[in-house]
Amino acid sequence: MTGSTAASFTADDYRARMERAARTAAEAGLAGLLVAPGPDLVWLTGYTPPAVTERLTLLVLSAGQDPVLVVPALEAPDAHRAAGAAALTLRDWTDGKDPYAATAALLDPAGRFGISDNAWALHLLALRQAMPGSSYASLTEALPMLRAVKDAAELDLMAAAGAAADATFEEIRNVPFAGRPESEVAADLDRLLRRHGHEQVDFTIVASGPNGADPHHEAGDRVIARGDMVVLDFGGLRDGYGSDTSRTVHVGEPTDEERRVHDIVREAQEAGFRAVRPGAACQDVDRAAREVIAAAGYGEYFIHRTGHGIGVTTHEPPYMIEGEERPLVPGMCFSVEPGVYLPGRFGVRIEDIVTVTEDGGRRLNTTARELVIVE
Amino acid sequence: MTGSTAASFTADDYRARMERAARTAAEAGLAGLLVAPGPDLVWLTGYTPPAVTERLTLLVLSAGQDPVLVVPALEAPDAHRAAGAAALTLRDWTDGKDPYAATAALLDPAGRFGISDNAWALHLLALRQAMPGSSYASLTEALPMLRAVKDAAELDLMAAAGAAADATFEEIRNVPFAGRPESEVAADLDRLLRRHGHEQVDFTIVASGPNGADPHHEAGDRVIARGDMVVLDFGGLRDGYGSDTSRTVHVGEPTDEERRVHDIVREAQEAGFRAVRPGAACQDVDRAAREVIAAAGYGEYFIHRTGHGIGVTTHEPPYMIEGEERPLVPGMCFSVEPGVYLPGRFGVRIEDIVTVTEDGGRRLNTTARELVIVE
Repeated sequence: MTGSTAASFTADDYRARMERAARTAAEAGLAGLLVAPGPDLVWLTGYTPPAVTERLTLLVLSAGQDPVLVVPALEAPDAHRAAGAAALTLRDWTDGKDPYAATAALLDPAGRFGISDNAWALHLLALRQAMPGSSYASLTEALPMLRAVKDAAELDLMAAAGAAADATFEEIRNVPFAGRPESEVAADLDRLLRRHGHEQVDFTIVASGPNGADPHHEAGDRVIARGDMVVLDFGGLRDGYGSDTSRTVHVGEPTDEERRVHDIVREAQEAGFRAVRPGAACQDVDRAAREVIAAAGYGEYFIHRTGHGIGVTTHEPPYMIEGEERPLVPGMCFSVEPGVYLPGRFGVRIEDIVTVTEDGGRRLNTTARELVIVE
Repeated sequence: MTGSTAASFTADDYRARMERAARTAAEAGLAGLLVAPGPDLVWLTGYTPPAVTERLTLLVLSAGQDPVLVVPALEAPDAHRAAGAAALTLRDWTDGKDPYAATAALLDPAGRFGISDNAWALHLLALRQAMPGSSYASLTEALPMLRAVKDAAELDLMAAAGAAADATFEEIRNVPFAGRPESEVAADLDRLLRRHGHEQVDFTIVASGPNGADPHHEAGDRVIARGDMVVLDFGGLRDGYGSDTSRTVHVGEPTDEERRVHDIVREAQEAGFRAVRPGAACQDVDRAAREVIAAAGYGEYFIHRTGHGIGVTTHEPPYMIEGEERPLVPGMCFSVEPGVYLPGRFGVRIEDIVTVTEDGGRRLNTTARELVIVE
């Protein structure tokens, strides 16, 4: 399985990304970046190894030096086929050889390096042992916004992923809910997302009745009944870029209270969306949404941050959370997803992916945010 | 998705494993073990988080102290349902709080800790920052054999996984090969493994003709032809325990050379198997298999180690490789899988999972190792 974004970008695109990353690292005082398999590597090279094991695969970037991809010899044929392979030097190593010494030979032994958040501790410990004078920072902490601003081609892919998730919602609202276990509706979501072009489904949350009060409930055996609120939250990757949307539906006629809570969350979501503009702080989006819910008396039931970034993963910086003071920049993409969770009773969450434009926010999900009645 | 081994073991089983791990760590001079989501956590607690993200989930074990599982609050309901939950204390943390400070409060700030190989660098760096006097070793390097010796219940599960892989081979040898792309036969393997009870398929290698000379070739568009050797290597997890077997088949009548190379690999596999006995070194298994291939003049074409351990993953210590001098112990399970790879022409690999008994080795794969002719 090679990187699914391979078809969309050329070696020149990857070369430009790697150059920018190395330059940004140097500006941040880092001697280089060490990039492990995962979203950073896909974004920088288009490469996904066939498997992530204890064998070291690591992209080494430093300003003024050609990018080098250290790979196990068995993996070299796969790496050669990556879309960004022409923009880097492959250095393969065979079982029994020491890949850390080979990596250290490329680096300033006393340097400070940014390393992928998800690099294995095994590799970090071995690199430090090979270079006792080196030090490390998490790549996301050192360069949190490296992948945050999407270019025009990436935004097209994000919009296509969002449209596919919306098409999924338009179909799922017409399937039967009452009398079926949550897991069956979740399987429908999975099938629909794939039919609409997703190669990877990351989550298909179907949280009915009291399960809706747990924001991380996925989908279980509970049989959905008339009178249930049902939180639907689903997404994944389509052509390598992410979708993530939530709508809360009701099986049959809702009560006045259910309508009221849904209205409050909808207004909070709208307020969060309206706070999106270049130069606003990430936390302003969180504050705007939270204020609406708090003013309505439900503040203690909104128990998570308002949003997270999305791109080649469905979960990345920037985070819309109190304390995140970094500014919004055109091209950033993130969720705006306030919720209210009433323990033992029900939950409501409404979520769109929003991208920052020069003029404000643009929603990449556009299905109705009103409370939808299902059967 | 919670740990698939949940059904097979009780909280008492997990308590015993955690106690043994903490004791073994103390004997190795470690102040404790820090276990991230992944195979170690599944094995110790039965718990698999719904998703692995930048939010810290970490099992903290140290001798003479109750096990503590640090989890994000959103994940706490899932953790509570884990089979081992009754054997540990859950400590949940909410967004905005510092989970590293909370973890550090449980630990000797100047201690040396074993940390899961696959723990994220992000978490390791943050723990070190919270405890500047602390130091770390990879859990696999510090306690390589922690999961290596399987108990009776685990061996039953390993045998069942092996039998399911064997049943898959008995069916795949009867499907049509000639005229179909490798990827279709790979899809058959996936379907059969699942039908025979696998909940996870890790690899379905179908490497025909010259593709067989690349040990890591998975399966591609190449259409299999009469006259091809085809390496089949497949496995995954069944009830949480691993299968992994390889057989090399031939489409129609093989040439004398193809038969000869296959015979050499079969004899090498037999020699590796016969070297398995308590007290032998891991490298003895590698040497025994390699000697046969070298004596036949194909030494330079056997380009990987002879085997790897298997258990709750399909790839773990102990490794059957030159330089690994640790002794074999009854209950260990690993592959014996020599191969010969002739670039541009074909490859042969034969692999069984073998477990160490008091008397020698016992194969957990028992399908014919002779060259099987397919159509």
